[in-house]
Amino acid sequence: MLNHPALDLVFAALADPSRRTMVERLSRGPASVSDLAQPLDMSLPAVMQHLQVLETSGLVRSEKSGRVRMCRIESTAFAAAEGWFAKRRASWERRFDRLEAFLADEGADDATAARSTKTSKPRRRR
Amino acid sequence: MLNHPALDLVFAALADPSRRTMVERLSRGPASVSDLAQPLDMSLPAVMQHLQVLETSGLVRSEKSGRVRMCRIESTAFAAAEGWFAKRRASWERRFDRLEAFLADEGADDATAARSTKTSKPRRRR
Repeated sequence: MLNHPALDLVFAALADPSRRTMVERLSRGPASVSDLAQPLDMSLPAVMQHLQVLETSGLVRSEKSGRVRMCRIESTAFAAAEGWFAKRRASWERRFDRLEAFLADEGADDATAARSTKTSKPRRRR
Repeated sequence: MLNHPALDLVFAALADPSRRTMVERLSRGPASVSDLAQPLDMSLPAVMQHLQVLETSGLVRSEKSGRVRMCRIESTAFAAAEGWFAKRRASWERRFDRLEAFLADEGADDATAARSTKTSKPRRRR
């Protein structure tokens, strides 16, 4: 995933507040371009340009249905970006688990030293 | 959170594969600038520029300790970006829950119709 080019486009697409507003709307269900434009203070062509960036990134898909262009979120690209955060958090939490285990061990060492050698129970290693 | 300016900077910072590699390294623990540069095929000044973007976004903090600049991840900015995805996923899953409930209701209607009016148990509404 390190140099996943799709992630470059997904994160670049999400770096704009109007595009995030569009994705926020689409996470509640499919919407037409006019639905997406409604909360945004911009022209329809400007909205279409933002939509284009979202579609290129793979986050959103749209298709014409009669005279209306309907848009929906693309779960694959969304999950890839979400997964990037999840992986970082996982390695970071593993680090804190190791730190906690280390400190628990240190504490056990101190306690063992204080009680001298009376207990024979092995100390916990995680 | 809709127009959170910090999110603009965080997502823009993550739109670059070298900067993501730096954050990936930092999620495993604090690192010096040379540690961060090690897997990247670029000059130290280029790494420093990327670090500057990460620091401006709030994702990373660095401080000089003697002759070494040590960098660490900033959990607040990280959590804000991660939280943006979590909120989208939550509203999207609520939508699927409602859809599922609707379909279950439709199914219950069909079953009730098929069994005529023999059962008096009220059908489940979620």
